[in-house]
Amino acid sequence: MQTPMIDYIHLLLESIGEDGGHVASYIPELAQANPDRLAVAIATLDGKVYVAGDADVEFTIQSISKPLTYALAIADQGLESVLQHIDVEPSGDAFNEISLDPDTGRPRNPMINAGAIAAHALVSGEDADARVDRIVDLYSRLAGRSLSIAEDVFESELSEADRNMALAYMLRTVGKLEGTPTDVVRGYTRQCSVSVTVRDLARMASVLAAGGVTAEGERVLEPEVNRQVLSVMATCGMYNSAGDWLTSVGIPAKSGVAGGLMGIMPGQVGIAVFSPRLDAHGNSTRGVRMFERMNHDLGLHLMNASASVSTVSRRVEIDGCSVHEITGDLHFIEAERIMRGFEDEPVGDAPVVIDLSQVRRANDIARRVMLEGIRRLHLDGHEIRLVDPWGVLGSAETGNGELVRGEQARGGYVPGAFANVASAVRG
Amino acid sequence: MQTPMIDYIHLLLESIGEDGGHVASYIPELAQANPDRLAVAIATLDGKVYVAGDADVEFTIQSISKPLTYALAIADQGLESVLQHIDVEPSGDAFNEISLDPDTGRPRNPMINAGAIAAHALVSGEDADARVDRIVDLYSRLAGRSLSIAEDVFESELSEADRNMALAYMLRTVGKLEGTPTDVVRGYTRQCSVSVTVRDLARMASVLAAGGVTAEGERVLEPEVNRQVLSVMATCGMYNSAGDWLTSVGIPAKSGVAGGLMGIMPGQVGIAVFSPRLDAHGNSTRGVRMFERMNHDLGLHLMNASASVSTVSRRVEIDGCSVHEITGDLHFIEAERIMRGFEDEPVGDAPVVIDLSQVRRANDIARRVMLEGIRRLHLDGHEIRLVDPWGVLGSAETGNGELVRGEQARGGYVPGAFANVASAVRG
Amino acid sequence: MQTPMIDYIHLLLESIGEDGGHVASYIPELAQANPDRLAVAIATLDGKVYVAGDADVEFTIQSISKPLTYALAIADQGLESVLQHIDVEPSGDAFNEISLDPDTGRPRNPMINAGAIAAHALVSGEDADARVDRIVDLYSRLAGRSLSIAEDVFESELSEADRNMALAYMLRTVGKLEGTPTDVVRGYTRQCSVSVTVRDLARMASVLAAGGVTAEGERVLEPEVNRQVLSVMATCGMYNSAGDWLTSVGIPAKSGVAGGLMGIMPGQVGIAVFSPRLDAHGNSTRGVRMFERMNHDLGLHLMNASASVSTVSRRVEIDGCSVHEITGDLHFIEAERIMRGFEDEPVGDAPVVIDLSQVRRANDIARRVMLEGIRRLHLDGHEIRLVDPWGVLGSAETGNGELVRGEQARGGYVPGAFANVASAVRG
Amino acid sequence: MQTPMIDYIHLLLESIGEDGGHVASYIPELAQANPDRLAVAIATLDGKVYVAGDADVEFTIQSISKPLTYALAIADQGLESVLQHIDVEPSGDAFNEISLDPDTGRPRNPMINAGAIAAHALVSGEDADARVDRIVDLYSRLAGRSLSIAEDVFESELSEADRNMALAYMLRTVGKLEGTPTDVVRGYTRQCSVSVTVRDLARMASVLAAGGVTAEGERVLEPEVNRQVLSVMATCGMYNSAGDWLTSVGIPAKSGVAGGLMGIMPGQVGIAVFSPRLDAHGNSTRGVRMFERMNHDLGLHLMNASASVSTVSRRVEIDGCSVHEITGDLHFIEAERIMRGFEDEPVGDAPVVIDLSQVRRANDIARRVMLEGIRRLHLDGHEIRLVDPWGVLGSAETGNGELVRGEQARGGYVPGAFANVASAVRG
Repeated sequence: MQTPMIDYIHLLLESIGEDGGHVASYIPELAQANPDRLAVAIATLDGKVYVAGDADVEFTIQSISKPLTYALAIADQGLESVLQHIDVEPSGDAFNEISLDPDTGRPRNPMINAGAIAAHALVSGEDADARVDRIVDLYSRLAGRSLSIAEDVFESELSEADRNMALAYMLRTVGKLEGTPTDVVRGYTRQCSVSVTVRDLARMASVLAAGGVTAEGERVLEPEVNRQVLSVMATCGMYNSAGDWLTSVGIPAKSGVAGGLMGIMPGQVGIAVFSPRLDAHGNSTRGVRMFERMNHDLGLHLMNASASVSTVSRRVEIDGCSVHEITGDLHFIEAERIMRGFEDEPVGDAPVVIDLSQVRRANDIARRVMLEGIRRLHLDGHEIRLVDPWGVLGSAETGNGELVRGEQARGGYVPGAFANVASAVRG
Repeated sequence: MQTPMIDYIHLLLESIGEDGGHVASYIPELAQANPDRLAVAIATLDGKVYVAGDADVEFTIQSISKPLTYALAIADQGLESVLQHIDVEPSGDAFNEISLDPDTGRPRNPMINAGAIAAHALVSGEDADARVDRIVDLYSRLAGRSLSIAEDVFESELSEADRNMALAYMLRTVGKLEGTPTDVVRGYTRQCSVSVTVRDLARMASVLAAGGVTAEGERVLEPEVNRQVLSVMATCGMYNSAGDWLTSVGIPAKSGVAGGLMGIMPGQVGIAVFSPRLDAHGNSTRGVRMFERMNHDLGLHLMNASASVSTVSRRVEIDGCSVHEITGDLHFIEAERIMRGFEDEPVGDAPVVIDLSQVRRANDIARRVMLEGIRRLHLDGHEIRLVDPWGVLGSAETGNGELVRGEQARGGYVPGAFANVASAVRG
Repeated sequence: MQTPMIDYIHLLLESIGEDGGHVASYIPELAQANPDRLAVAIATLDGKVYVAGDADVEFTIQSISKPLTYALAIADQGLESVLQHIDVEPSGDAFNEISLDPDTGRPRNPMINAGAIAAHALVSGEDADARVDRIVDLYSRLAGRSLSIAEDVFESELSEADRNMALAYMLRTVGKLEGTPTDVVRGYTRQCSVSVTVRDLARMASVLAAGGVTAEGERVLEPEVNRQVLSVMATCGMYNSAGDWLTSVGIPAKSGVAGGLMGIMPGQVGIAVFSPRLDAHGNSTRGVRMFERMNHDLGLHLMNASASVSTVSRRVEIDGCSVHEITGDLHFIEAERIMRGFEDEPVGDAPVVIDLSQVRRANDIARRVMLEGIRRLHLDGHEIRLVDPWGVLGSAETGNGELVRGEQARGGYVPGAFANVASAVRG
Repeated sequence: MQTPMIDYIHLLLESIGEDGGHVASYIPELAQANPDRLAVAIATLDGKVYVAGDADVEFTIQSISKPLTYALAIADQGLESVLQHIDVEPSGDAFNEISLDPDTGRPRNPMINAGAIAAHALVSGEDADARVDRIVDLYSRLAGRSLSIAEDVFESELSEADRNMALAYMLRTVGKLEGTPTDVVRGYTRQCSVSVTVRDLARMASVLAAGGVTAEGERVLEPEVNRQVLSVMATCGMYNSAGDWLTSVGIPAKSGVAGGLMGIMPGQVGIAVFSPRLDAHGNSTRGVRMFERMNHDLGLHLMNASASVSTVSRRVEIDGCSVHEITGDLHFIEAERIMRGFEDEPVGDAPVVIDLSQVRRANDIARRVMLEGIRRLHLDGHEIRLVDPWGVLGSAETGNGELVRGEQARGGYVPGAFANVASAVRG
């Protein structure tokens, strides 16, 4: 069989309907784009990318570069320093992009041009070329392939950079620009001219969705940086008003004037679309529509909450042993429920088997809570027998109470002490 | 043993440190509150509530009523109609609370007084008393106990309602107020005077976190209503700026001037704190601090993404059968990965066992994708043997290819066709 | 002959052209007005009123009451106190009328409803009736006849006073309203319902143009109050933007929703027009047009400056006397030029005749400078012979050097010491 | 004797009291200014300049250049075209200087930097040098001497022109800048570096006060241009809010960051002061104070209206002739009163003598009304005998009814038909 995913995204393209709006015209090179291009890509956190349409047609990344460079600026300078240069508030209408916060002089957020230029200037590097080298390197690591700059678009765009020059001079006036306006605008324009496909963008999005780690396991962005970038995209990423976007679509996203659009569902998936004609907000007309459709069809909304809460842990007695069978992914809330099962365990020296053989994922919080629960059962006098074939709890030595902290356990896969419940029960 | 949760929240109260700010003074009754009260409560989606401190001290709900009544307004009038009266955009500084959108006349959002008064007036009911009856009924259902109004606070607040009277008259002027100002302000003031404890608030929050369903399984709010309320709380709930709150705390929340503060982590947990002294923003000083601490300690942030993606499905051959063992909760992204396992199945009439015995939860999307995958394997010639002891896929009849769609299956618990994998393999 | 003025204003009415816009509809009684009414009146500072059209048709004064009541508030409370309640800045677009200054809570100016309501509340008086009695009394003194209230319009307007109720409650919230909202709005609505004709309005305007003094010589407003009112009308009087009005029309003015429009050219003339249909700004459509025409035709613009400066003083020698013949009105600048003539007078005891027989008007500054010049000539040794048949310099006793200061001289008409130059020369 | 003016302005300097604030520091050259400089100058419309203090110390004109260059832009391009580039509305706080009108992209007014830069660019000329040549030429004509540029200040200022570069690029982005940013900013900076004294500024102001004509009779600015400039200065000239300035000081004015301040009382006088320390608004601290004092002492406020209206015309009978003796300056309002005297003239063929021998000034409107009145008396059958030794009415031929219109009469001085009343009465 073929996975229904393929059919789904092809159907999506076929049924997306009439296009509208116009190709961006202010940059001569963009104006020459084929307006009928249409593509979609969905990338999973483990590296599978579904594509349909013109998935290998290159276009310039434009404003989709903003969150990525913002991430690099934070990585280079630290969040505090970046926040002193750039605020994180939504900025209302498009024209106000040009304005800075009247009290602090900071650009409202890194998704408008003023903020993006300030962010570019915060990337470490002697000059535009040095900064752009590091930026392209980051983008390439996110995309999983070596990206390059569309020089013709760059030249074309640089010749129309009056607005960005104005912003850069203004930023320098208020002390928010590192470097000289001409050099910074040159670098920023190059950054916007990086050439990508929807496949690249979906892959980039999937790394952000995975908390900054690629499918191959490379950590590209620290978790705090990644979280900051997603948070800012959620309120400031689209030119629509913050509340409108968060209520109706409900995932962090960013569009570019060349027709690209990238969205991230944290912990789940990265999505990208491409269609050059833009609506009045400057977003890809069909892109936004595809996006809304996918979000609806795939149930992707930050505020979607599952009503059905089923058992994650049950206690059975086998041969005098108390066996806690645990299923599903473990976060704080599942750990909390497991603790309730532990609570019911009467004090004594009866062996307690904790069966994690059906658990594959646990976050730090869950791991810490689990280890603390095991420690307590141990203190109650119980002999603890841990079945953790997937190493979910890390290299915890449970027999002697010297529990390895979750932080250390994060390192890698460590097989559990026992192969299965049967041998655990047998001791 | 005792669950570590209890220790955690007690430790939280003990270590929260110096209080600051002042008890709200503009309402005489509030000014008399004991400023040293301190309480916290965490409620799980299945009804467990952890509390510490003055958890059973009652105080008035005040602005925390706003998202709840907004939910009722949407339930009564439909989202479209409510959006015509009230926008969903963050509103900047506190003073602007008083203003309406210059173009549409709509209050900026339902979390500022103007929007909350408009929302109150949209609740069905002949007059203030009728509306308040329905409102208190909703709050009571959310809290899981019968709530009542603190009449002394109500009287005290009504006598200081100039600002709300101004807002109500203004709303009527721009056609956004249903009813007469005096009656609406009376009703709105009563709504704010509902008496609650942190236990109540945490429980209410947990229902919102569960998508609108109580721990007992009662659906109090439709999923769409619930999602809208959470989305609006995420950007407009706290008096801080939208971006600041979303980046730093990262969950939907709402505070009240009596010192309460309620937060929701969708799909996970409801939280409430109480401490009457307020900071300059009008939020509980220690409340905000406790909140930030818990969110950090418990890893609650909408943008937290887990980097570790482990196997959800593996294929083993048993006695000539292809067995797909599936573990963990199923959403779109897990279903997608399972499909990849199905894809690898060579065309033929070999029996395929789909083992869901370790799966307890699946959302609609996942269910639909799974059923489609099964249908396709069936079309490929395979005999499908489904092990679904928890009825995750609904009443799917897999033997004859006439698969029940997910929508129908949603109805209730239907045991799987086979008790376990062994009998499935045997056929 | 008949004065061309009469012909001029009749011609103005005849040629004003097509009407446009609509009669104010939000107040039922106003909606019933005859939309074709048309009238104009020009009142000179000495009491002559030229009228044409429906000059004796009564309509309600509406917002034209605002500057007048503002004057009374200043007279009652002092300028400082009134400024603490109401600012004097233009407020941009119409909707912002509803807003208050975010820092101070003050209404932007007394010409928008919020400011006008605050001004009404600052008029001394126990309650609405007491305040309105004093207000109607002021208006009557300005109009030169006893005015009364159109009770039917008042009742109609009071029933549609939601916006004003909102403003009054809001003002009380920020501490800028003296009294209770209901009483103040009642009083303000009565104030707006005073019934006037264009003849009345032109006469009122002429009193303001005369610095607060009627043609009969009654001082109704102190000069400082009058100047404040005109200044505020100049920037905030019309709903158009401040700069637009000041550049294009260039005189203080105020319009009312019943179709009246009143303008003041300081020191020159008062003008009023009436035509009920309103343009998009809420100003009388034909009224504004008539106004622009008159201002152009009659050269009325605050910034019109005369280029031609001719002699105001010349020195002739007659029979050994130095005679300074002075002509025209005397202000600072003319006095300054006369002093230059005095400067040329060689020191000595030759008699100096100062001939003011062709001078009818002098302001305080000019009077003071003249007296100081005379004092200095006297100190130089000259015998001074003053010819001041119109008493322009006041009761100055010039023969003995004991000059009466201008302040004292202000009292009244004092004939000069000499009947004419001939006798002055003769000594 | 010496004119009291000299004593007055010296006394003003002596009594002005403590200085405050700081010399402008952002431009190195300005920071080196001697902060204790103090000067004042008052220039009459006929060329007399009173000075005190450091009246011949040169400083750079800075922002005082803005209204002057605005005038040249209007003269070069026409008012319509300039209005399409630059609005005329006050702009609120200082920071917003940076912003443009969101709807039109126009700078708010020509007194903020954005507007001033746009105005500079509208001056005709190939490049900065060509524009600056014409600008310096205009300033020199206004000042009555040849001015030059302080090259050291220019160089210093150009090196700190980031903000102006930002504004220029922004203006080009919105299509409001003619020319290239670098060239325009260079030219604008040179314009700001023109070196002047208070004597120069007072003289410039006096030309504006005279409607654009120098004391020597040279017309430098057309009346419409002059009126526009004064109107804009009245609302936008000072960094204080528009309403505050117009109510408290009440005359058009403009300050510069080097410490200069120039004010214009239309039709009366030009004033300038100089003191380098600036207050928080960027205005000269002592300069503003001197200004307020002078305006108070000299009665200079646009809204000052004289209450005393005295006779301008009286009718006497001499030898069967009706003689109308007219005194004072003639504008619309005086002409209107003279017409009333004409009205009383009974129909008949009796000679009417119109004695203008005491009239030296009449504006167009007055001239037209007078001629129309004379025409009507003629039509009534009267023989008209005009005594107009100063040619106030122009070359009117009154004997035969063929009246020359005022427009034609404007040309120059034409002596009246009769030398004096006596000969007029004799016929």
